[in-house]
Amino acid sequence: MAHRPIITLTTDFGLNDHYVGAVKGVILDINPDAQIIDICHSVQAFDVLDGALSIAQAYSYFPAGTVHVVVVDPGVGTARRPIILSTERHHFVAPDNGVLSLIYGREERVHVRHVTGEHYFLQPLSNTFHARDIFAPVAAYLAKGVDSEKFGEEIEDFVRFNAPRPKPVDQKTLRGVVLKVDRYGNMITNITPEDAPMIFGENPSPFKIVVGKREVTEIKNVYADGAPGEVFAILGSMGYLEISANRAAAAQLVGSGKGTEVNILLEGAVAASNGN
Amino acid sequence: MAHRPIITLTTDFGLNDHYVGAVKGVILDINPDAQIIDICHSVQAFDVLDGALSIAQAYSYFPAGTVHVVVVDPGVGTARRPIILSTERHHFVAPDNGVLSLIYGREERVHVRHVTGEHYFLQPLSNTFHARDIFAPVAAYLAKGVDSEKFGEEIEDFVRFNAPRPKPVDQKTLRGVVLKVDRYGNMITNITPEDAPMIFGENPSPFKIVVGKREVTEIKNVYADGAPGEVFAILGSMGYLEISANRAAAAQLVGSGKGTEVNILLEGAVAASNGN
Amino acid sequence: MAHRPIITLTTDFGLNDHYVGAVKGVILDINPDAQIIDICHSVQAFDVLDGALSIAQAYSYFPAGTVHVVVVDPGVGTARRPIILSTERHHFVAPDNGVLSLIYGREERVHVRHVTGEHYFLQPLSNTFHARDIFAPVAAYLAKGVDSEKFGEEIEDFVRFNAPRPKPVDQKTLRGVVLKVDRYGNMITNITPEDAPMIFGENPSPFKIVVGKREVTEIKNVYADGAPGEVFAILGSMGYLEISANRAAAAQLVGSGKGTEVNILLEGAVAASNGN
Repeated sequence: MAHRPIITLTTDFGLNDHYVGAVKGVILDINPDAQIIDICHSVQAFDVLDGALSIAQAYSYFPAGTVHVVVVDPGVGTARRPIILSTERHHFVAPDNGVLSLIYGREERVHVRHVTGEHYFLQPLSNTFHARDIFAPVAAYLAKGVDSEKFGEEIEDFVRFNAPRPKPVDQKTLRGVVLKVDRYGNMITNITPEDAPMIFGENPSPFKIVVGKREVTEIKNVYADGAPGEVFAILGSMGYLEISANRAAAAQLVGSGKGTEVNILLEGAVAASNGN
Repeated sequence: MAHRPIITLTTDFGLNDHYVGAVKGVILDINPDAQIIDICHSVQAFDVLDGALSIAQAYSYFPAGTVHVVVVDPGVGTARRPIILSTERHHFVAPDNGVLSLIYGREERVHVRHVTGEHYFLQPLSNTFHARDIFAPVAAYLAKGVDSEKFGEEIEDFVRFNAPRPKPVDQKTLRGVVLKVDRYGNMITNITPEDAPMIFGENPSPFKIVVGKREVTEIKNVYADGAPGEVFAILGSMGYLEISANRAAAAQLVGSGKGTEVNILLEGAVAASNGN
Repeated sequence: MAHRPIITLTTDFGLNDHYVGAVKGVILDINPDAQIIDICHSVQAFDVLDGALSIAQAYSYFPAGTVHVVVVDPGVGTARRPIILSTERHHFVAPDNGVLSLIYGREERVHVRHVTGEHYFLQPLSNTFHARDIFAPVAAYLAKGVDSEKFGEEIEDFVRFNAPRPKPVDQKTLRGVVLKVDRYGNMITNITPEDAPMIFGENPSPFKIVVGKREVTEIKNVYADGAPGEVFAILGSMGYLEISANRAAAAQLVGSGKGTEVNILLEGAVAASNGN
């Protein structure tokens, strides 16, 4: 590689402590030319799905050869395995607790290895901070060019969960969920245009989206099309339906957040519902 | 340039989401040797003036050749233009919504271009995340040495607003405003020594500064000169009058924040005011 | 040095303002190849001990030659001196207010210099932002290879405090304190295994740890061993006894935080206490 090796960090460490700093120090001590990029350290504490969403939304933009460290690790120190996931373009270093689940779904050829090469670890090894003692040094050596095969055997039984998918409740209703609320208060659902072609097409069927106590009947093209106080739907940059507002926090206007049910009702259903 | 190209980021994305990470990935995929520097991602959401203040306070310290990406963009996806502002030392990439207003005021020769070269954009282009799809790649190519002329035609009608300036209310009163409250609780006003030479000179006239329910009668040289619980004025590092306290948050002691009126009353006025 | 010079930043500037950005700009203008690493900018405002803990927990992981900038500086602009602390592997640039106290205790050979070489400072020099005007440029020149002797004379009377140490209250009771609460709600005490060998050994004596209204009777090996809602003790990655919970914030469960007393009572004492 001509350019400096790139190592990204996605963790639930927050920014109030020295944890991120220690991880960076370990990486640089092994690989002082590494370029360390913070993707996000504000994954919700202990929330493996939230970590899985964060890395899934960012990794693909990075150049080939990037090593991604992903640590949301409530099981640190237990028998859960440290792993390296290798795709055609990237490596990921993480605990084997499902935090890479959304990568497996997006990449065709993946190789997962159980990292057992303890001579790559920091010594003495703590029971409570494997990001510093295992994941950081492994990433640093990977980015230095050590072959992934050197770290351990390939495994097939890695932990993988499916992100919650929207489900049809009846012929006219699709039920999804708010995966996260972003900084602006946008409520990001798990519903994609493929899940709900009837509302995303060129001539969408009449519909209403029920979220909390609000009913949304329109998909806007841009945030700025919203009237003051209006809550609307939009196809967000993550590829999901978002419940949003213009220059305001939709989650606050709706009065609910992560985990909230989102029901898309097509017209017949709307009529039926009105008829009740 | 011998050294690695530098690209800074100033946004209202916050640090809780993957947005900053995606932007960095796009930059590095195009320009893997870029050195990406976070100036601030905690500009108040949708607040173009707050973004303008942030970049204006930081940009000039960076070396010649730096490319600054500045994104506070509530109008993302609308007809508002992406622009490149070039000064003698720096480039700025931003939406044309006034977020660079304070740069225009501080630099003599500026050239502003409307970025229309879509082949530099990420495809498919979203309607909601132009930092990732437009501003990041444009900055990456600029930092790689692509001439700014390549991105689009020069324009003169770019959006520019004036930051709120202090105004004389009467012969003895100058009225300013609190532009922002910083991390320490310092209330940063829009009043400079040039605006209020009578209180910043060597032998200042007797005065009082009224902010919220507090009256301040002294300008300290250093924060540590303040007594416990005392609220005082100081010439801050941004070049503005600040209402501050020693090891305490002045905004909390005063009980008000951003947007609060700040009145400087010279002695006669004080007397008159007392006479009421 | 073959690799790019590394400069780390540990401050109480927070991430909401432009302060960190300005510091980085100053460094890069002098030393554009410096690799700037954020250790932590969320040291509690004005809290020198909190800053001392942050840098002490992170610095040793960085490679030889690293320059650490540590700024918690409520006395900015007063007579307190800017200093360079040099150990065998690292340099530290900081105000002489004790923020490096925990480094002195961990390093054998230290040289401390009073920085007086004003030609290295930014001009005009503010009274309120020496991180930008003094510490950043000094670090940038140090990382560029300027010899530390060039910056000023060696001193011996630098400010140094001792971190609070646990104390025996009686023959059966050791009293420590919560130094900080981390992002996960772990309550990090100042008690090391050396301080309390009777509870950390292979066959520990029966004991209870009293913190707030909770009594803890077990030391777990890993966080995940805790039952839901259980508060337990663990040897944390900082080398201190922590009061923790599994996937939950111990500080919240205990209902107290930084500064809370932590009493370790050995069995006899427990019996006596029960006898009351």
